[in-house]
Amino acid sequence: MSKKYVFSFAEGDGKNKHLLGGKGANLCEMTQFGLNVPPGFVITTEACLEYQDLQDLPEGLIEEVKGHIKSLEKSTGKIFGGAENPLLVSVRSGSAMSMPGMMDTILNLGLNAATLPGLIAQTQNERFGYDAYRRFIQLFGKVALGVPDELFDEQFDEVKRQAGVKADIGLNAEHLQDVSERFLNVVRNHTGKPFPADVFAQLEIAIKAVFNSWMGKRAVDYRREFKITPDKANGTAVNVVTMVFGNLGYDCATGVGFTRNPATGENEMYGEYLVNAQGEDVVAGIRTPKPVHELAKEMPDLYRQLVELRDNLEGHYAEVQDYEYTIEKSVLYCLQTRNGKMNAASLVRTSVEMFNEGLITKEKALLRVQPNDLEQLLHPTLDPKHGQKPLAQGLPASPGAASGAVVFDADNAELRGRAGEKVILVREETKPEDIHGFFAAQGILTSRGGKTSHAAVVARGMGKACVAGAEGIHVDTRSRLATVGELTLREGDIITIDGGTGNVYLGEIPTIPPVFSEELKTLLGWADEVARLKVMANADTPDAARKAVEFGAVGIGLCRTERMFNASERLPLVVDMILARTVDERVEALAKLLPIQREDFKQIFTAMAPRPVTVRLLDPPMHEFLPNEHQLVEDIDAIEHYRKVVAGHIAAGGVLNRPLLGGDLTPDELNAALSKKERMLRKVRELYEVNPMLGHRGVRLGITYPEIYKMQIRGVLEATAECLQAGLDVHPEIMVPQVINVAELNRVKVWVDEISTEVEAKFGIKLNVKFGSMVETVSATVRANELATVAEFFSFGTNDLTQAALSFSREDAENKFLPLYIETGIIKDNPFEALDVNGVGPLMEIAVTKGRQSRPDLKVGICGEAGGHPESIQFCHQIGLTYVSCSGPRVPVARLAAAHATLLEK
Amino acid sequence: MSKKYVFSFAEGDGKNKHLLGGKGANLCEMTQFGLNVPPGFVITTEACLEYQDLQDLPEGLIEEVKGHIKSLEKSTGKIFGGAENPLLVSVRSGSAMSMPGMMDTILNLGLNAATLPGLIAQTQNERFGYDAYRRFIQLFGKVALGVPDELFDEQFDEVKRQAGVKADIGLNAEHLQDVSERFLNVVRNHTGKPFPADVFAQLEIAIKAVFNSWMGKRAVDYRREFKITPDKANGTAVNVVTMVFGNLGYDCATGVGFTRNPATGENEMYGEYLVNAQGEDVVAGIRTPKPVHELAKEMPDLYRQLVELRDNLEGHYAEVQDYEYTIEKSVLYCLQTRNGKMNAASLVRTSVEMFNEGLITKEKALLRVQPNDLEQLLHPTLDPKHGQKPLAQGLPASPGAASGAVVFDADNAELRGRAGEKVILVREETKPEDIHGFFAAQGILTSRGGKTSHAAVVARGMGKACVAGAEGIHVDTRSRLATVGELTLREGDIITIDGGTGNVYLGEIPTIPPVFSEELKTLLGWADEVARLKVMANADTPDAARKAVEFGAVGIGLCRTERMFNASERLPLVVDMILARTVDERVEALAKLLPIQREDFKQIFTAMAPRPVTVRLLDPPMHEFLPNEHQLVEDIDAIEHYRKVVAGHIAAGGVLNRPLLGGDLTPDELNAALSKKERMLRKVRELYEVNPMLGHRGVRLGITYPEIYKMQIRGVLEATAECLQAGLDVHPEIMVPQVINVAELNRVKVWVDEISTEVEAKFGIKLNVKFGSMVETVSATVRANELATVAEFFSFGTNDLTQAALSFSREDAENKFLPLYIETGIIKDNPFEALDVNGVGPLMEIAVTKGRQSRPDLKVGICGEAGGHPESIQFCHQIGLTYVSCSGPRVPVARLAAAHATLLEK
Repeated sequence: MSKKYVFSFAEGDGKNKHLLGGKGANLCEMTQFGLNVPPGFVITTEACLEYQDLQDLPEGLIEEVKGHIKSLEKSTGKIFGGAENPLLVSVRSGSAMSMPGMMDTILNLGLNAATLPGLIAQTQNERFGYDAYRRFIQLFGKVALGVPDELFDEQFDEVKRQAGVKADIGLNAEHLQDVSERFLNVVRNHTGKPFPADVFAQLEIAIKAVFNSWMGKRAVDYRREFKITPDKANGTAVNVVTMVFGNLGYDCATGVGFTRNPATGENEMYGEYLVNAQGEDVVAGIRTPKPVHELAKEMPDLYRQLVELRDNLEGHYAEVQDYEYTIEKSVLYCLQTRNGKMNAASLVRTSVEMFNEGLITKEKALLRVQPNDLEQLLHPTLDPKHGQKPLAQGLPASPGAASGAVVFDADNAELRGRAGEKVILVREETKPEDIHGFFAAQGILTSRGGKTSHAAVVARGMGKACVAGAEGIHVDTRSRLATVGELTLREGDIITIDGGTGNVYLGEIPTIPPVFSEELKTLLGWADEVARLKVMANADTPDAARKAVEFGAVGIGLCRTERMFNASERLPLVVDMILARTVDERVEALAKLLPIQREDFKQIFTAMAPRPVTVRLLDPPMHEFLPNEHQLVEDIDAIEHYRKVVAGHIAAGGVLNRPLLGGDLTPDELNAALSKKERMLRKVRELYEVNPMLGHRGVRLGITYPEIYKMQIRGVLEATAECLQAGLDVHPEIMVPQVINVAELNRVKVWVDEISTEVEAKFGIKLNVKFGSMVETVSATVRANELATVAEFFSFGTNDLTQAALSFSREDAENKFLPLYIETGIIKDNPFEALDVNGVGPLMEIAVTKGRQSRPDLKVGICGEAGGHPESIQFCHQIGLTYVSCSGPRVPVARLAAAHATLLEK
Repeated sequence: MSKKYVFSFAEGDGKNKHLLGGKGANLCEMTQFGLNVPPGFVITTEACLEYQDLQDLPEGLIEEVKGHIKSLEKSTGKIFGGAENPLLVSVRSGSAMSMPGMMDTILNLGLNAATLPGLIAQTQNERFGYDAYRRFIQLFGKVALGVPDELFDEQFDEVKRQAGVKADIGLNAEHLQDVSERFLNVVRNHTGKPFPADVFAQLEIAIKAVFNSWMGKRAVDYRREFKITPDKANGTAVNVVTMVFGNLGYDCATGVGFTRNPATGENEMYGEYLVNAQGEDVVAGIRTPKPVHELAKEMPDLYRQLVELRDNLEGHYAEVQDYEYTIEKSVLYCLQTRNGKMNAASLVRTSVEMFNEGLITKEKALLRVQPNDLEQLLHPTLDPKHGQKPLAQGLPASPGAASGAVVFDADNAELRGRAGEKVILVREETKPEDIHGFFAAQGILTSRGGKTSHAAVVARGMGKACVAGAEGIHVDTRSRLATVGELTLREGDIITIDGGTGNVYLGEIPTIPPVFSEELKTLLGWADEVARLKVMANADTPDAARKAVEFGAVGIGLCRTERMFNASERLPLVVDMILARTVDERVEALAKLLPIQREDFKQIFTAMAPRPVTVRLLDPPMHEFLPNEHQLVEDIDAIEHYRKVVAGHIAAGGVLNRPLLGGDLTPDELNAALSKKERMLRKVRELYEVNPMLGHRGVRLGITYPEIYKMQIRGVLEATAECLQAGLDVHPEIMVPQVINVAELNRVKVWVDEISTEVEAKFGIKLNVKFGSMVETVSATVRANELATVAEFFSFGTNDLTQAALSFSREDAENKFLPLYIETGIIKDNPFEALDVNGVGPLMEIAVTKGRQSRPDLKVGICGEAGGHPESIQFCHQIGLTYVSCSGPRVPVARLAAAHATLLEK
């Protein structure tokens, strides 16, 4: 028996998209579970593949097709090529995956000079008949015969000109008859043959055209580009469907609908329709469609049928559907359905409600929502209806939208911010000394720097909106203005930034506040039940800690102590510590910092109790706390100049006028200021490093200046003791950064033990502080077995580890070669956003394996940027990590991703 | 039966140093193989340990000692404590390893008021008797009884004053008798007890004193410091030896000797002796000893005995011996022997000759010479007799000694160098633009930078002497002078630098030229037979290639193409290439470089034929070829100033006077110069990188600017074709730096294939160029299986790999925390000199294993600095590398180290 190439909708396997294509399978599926689909059949992808081999239709195919046409004639009572009641069909392509470059749909196939009168007679509408005819000739001519569209358009324009009308609607039946005849001539002239009148010839040509389009250049390129390999889609099927018309009168209509409201997720009838219209009229926007509720009044019975259709669709697909239908002479046909695209809020709401309604399982409810989609729910976003064009574009460095007055320095930001004004801090780039401006501002905009610039990192940590590296904006801090092309922004001008897109707008644009809905809480609760990975937050302040709890973090996986150093009233103490000429001077400066850090720790521990808090000892190199060399040289020049002015003023008998702090300074005061700046400059030069990423930082700094780490350790331990004494169940952990071997850990551990003993004696209390190591150098990964003899936990710093594994400096890579690398496919994703599982992943696996060789119950987490990235979280799950830690607003994303990791494993 | 604590020299096991100590075992050994050693015995280290536990001598020990004294009495015919012919002994400590802080030797034990007359009677020498007695009292008093030396010295000085003499030699027997009596009083007064007269009491006190010295503070500290654990030495033995005297008359003598000349290695009698003298007289230098050859005339029979002794020693120990002997009344006693310390040249010569004489095996001959010792043979060194004090000290950055006139810039170095003058280039630090000065100079001295500074690396590559970072020298290039403290060095002053020690001297100091002796060639030939690892050289020029062959390299493992860019006539072309505004401009600039590189390759391939040459494509970032920002800003200021001067000159009616190139320039020429400098400055700023180590370099640069790599590939391939056409058997290999994944390799491989096809067609020849990858990123190690699908060989770049594995920037680490890390033992060695086998080693192992999974015959080498480091070479051998590649002068070191690796494996 020969192979079966053709399946009617009643017999095709709705699950077999590979054989029948997506559309064909779906039409079979809908037909078989009882929806009223216009009858039709599918020619398989196998036939397509054989066609490619043979360069001809496989034997027997046309006979099979003819048999199925016979069946269509039987079920519709129409005759294909019949003069009285002609059967018309549509012919369309459909492979397992949708792709551009495939053939457009041919409608109304089956029309010719003989059948046209039958259609006109049946529809009682001459204009409709000729209109259908000329459309068919053009579409078939173009798609199946390769006649250029322009040749048809020329003729059509000519008729319109002769008729003196501008739009198609002005043409009557006669005009359209003229058009049809001209079109037939176009085809004859171009192809050298008359337009095929025989309907089976039409059908055969159309089928071949569909098959040919599979190997067309555009389709082949597309499959190569998007790696659509034969296992995903191999060949296209051909769908032949009986035409139904929504434009045959006022008992006809056509419409589109969602089974639930895609904007809100509400479980209600949703959609639009047009009476006496074709599907393309709804799309074209010539007439305004009506909301579906009006159909209830206009055609109550059909509305009931439509509600039933909707229920059937959801009941069957267990997913919100986006569907199309046509009503022909009071009969409702379902033409198409597919999964509905929704925003995150709707996805979350429908997930929870569909589970509650018993439509889907919890697993399905969780898997329907992509973790990354949640992020848009957690920041204010621009009202999508604003319609404004951006002034400039930078990098989307920290999500959220914010509006405010432009300010060009941190002091001013603080001043205006305290006065209650909303401000956006606009800088060329930011430095730690700007940090008080961050606290005061709604958002940060810089004209230089990437997603890892100071501005970006700090803003993300604070959950503030940030657009970085908007190179089109030229910031002139001295003149206190910025220019964008011809436009000048002055201090106080209102702008809006969108940290989710990187866009910058002039003026205030309304924002939509974030929603942490009950449904989202429910869904994330389910995620936590499923997930094996715990989710912690990176948080450096008591405020961030409280937010982390709100976001559902089960602890703080990374508390960066250097962030505490940056606050404006603390920075001078840190600078004194750095400028210290002796150990004693340094100890003295540190003694002033101790109570401040201890108080921070107390508040953070308290906010998190009884959850663990992992405190990382100082990591960055000291020069990060000082202004840059350039700035200092300028400051010194300025002071020296001012000193001359003051001296001249005094020499000329002037008096000093100091109504305000910051007014005139005496020569002595100026000398002191100058001397301090000069010391800072010397220190900056002394601290200069060729490769600061790989320089004097982390534990290397801690071991060189033990006073610093000892102060921080004391701060943690005393804060713990005070909390415990107050009856709080706190669980602090001390973590050492940049470790390469266990000797470093041992060195720091001795200090922890010594100070512990001291604090325990002083408070008469037993401390419960854990001790662990960052794993962010490659050496630490291969020596993890040694480290785990001392470390009670590990935390991967994937940012640093990635830089070390790839020998990429992130700041340099993102500005220089990384875009080209990603574009040309040398690497798949930016490895600083998505963990490089091939280059970095193996090191993490080694560390986990070796670490647990020494300490089987070793807690292992990750606190780099990848900790909030869903694919990376899946990898962390696979290699057996205990937790991931990410910035607060990414916590919900990570919780869902952790659940997905478990579910996808099965 | 109780434990045996005491062994006579005739019965102790000469191999058991752990039990008998080094000296004791050696005395037993010598006695037993027939040398005439004065009779004596050893008290074991076990006795010492029991003494530490008991805080008393173990039971039975003294009885055993007494039994052995009896045996001594029997064999010598003398009586311990006897009045007529008293037996005197020496008592000395001796553990398994020699260490300071142990007890000094006590001589003449057994003397007291009763035995002294017997000694005098036996020797017929009253002065000798009292001299021996007063020496014994002082030594015993100090060493065994803890009486301060000063108390004795005071008395001794008093007697000398009274006698009116300055030196001991002026004192007669009576004076010395007075001294002895005064010394006895000193002991009585200080200890409150009379000096022990009983000879067995003396012996017991002396034994306890030796045992106590084992736990003395100095000894304990020393053992802790140098990690002498109990398995290496546990407790000290006590050696009790019959005294023999070389100062009893003219039939007595004492001497020291080497079995071969330790300065030249020549196989001859070597040493000095004194007739009628004690051992300490030879050392003290009061009398001038005679060369041993004179003994042949003076005591022909004893000279023959000495020759026999020498032959016996070498025959037994199969090693050059450093020995001591005494002739007492025409009887030759051997008192001590140990392996002789020799310089590298002598070690090499004796190794070869001792093998030829059948004394040692080839294995032993190879293992006797430490690889690092060879380095001193391969560079000129300062004449050790110069005796000058250094002017300043820097880091020993590139070995060798060199003298020459100080010059402060490269142009001047070139000018003077071409004129035939020897010059030393003295700079604060060097840059690539100074490279022509390197070629012209004998050596390089910088006041800043470490062993990895530009100056150090380039000088090592060229095999030129370099002292770097001599911070005591302040270089003022503008004033063309340098100051060292109060001294000023002007251009033209002669200095000498020693790159092996880092010392800098004023004036010219004679140097000793390097010797690549026949013996060394023989030894290295043996090494090559034994070694599994091949040794290649890093060489960048035809000249260096020729030297590499002389040093015995079997190929070039690293030819750095960027070095070729640095020559003074080429740098402007490279700068044009960098400043190119379009691809076309860049291609044009590269086209000028192509013939130059091709010619270099031809010469190098020719020099090395038929050995392989591995050419590494461009590695450093482009900004390394440009002057630094600071310099450019200064240059621009200077040109602008000069432009004004010239404009003024012209306005005032002056004419331009340009007798020489570099004389006055026209305003147009100045404008052109200014414009070029400004373009360079903009480019330098554009190319600025935060972490250049991890920046836009290596294959990342090659992929961003394909023109550069394509030019280099074409250079290699065309050079190969021309060589092959000329009938040369050349084997070039192309190597890609900084690779992280196989996609990068594939990209470059396509270019190699394309250009190969083109060149093969043009020349009508088949090329045989291999294609490989540097493995210097961590990602490359963990993805080595992928890389090896394309790469035919790997070469580890351990400098970069170490930086990445440890997250240490070498330049920063060596200036900041690395010294402290090494000093406190956090890391053992500088990981940039000796491979870090724990932190970096595992990555190399992973790469070798994974690479050979994909390509079992994969050639794997190393071309980082560790490639010339013996311990690192041993590791490379262990993990199965194919070859190491190092700088030319390290090649002999590496060849020997490779042989050692094989031998030590057994």
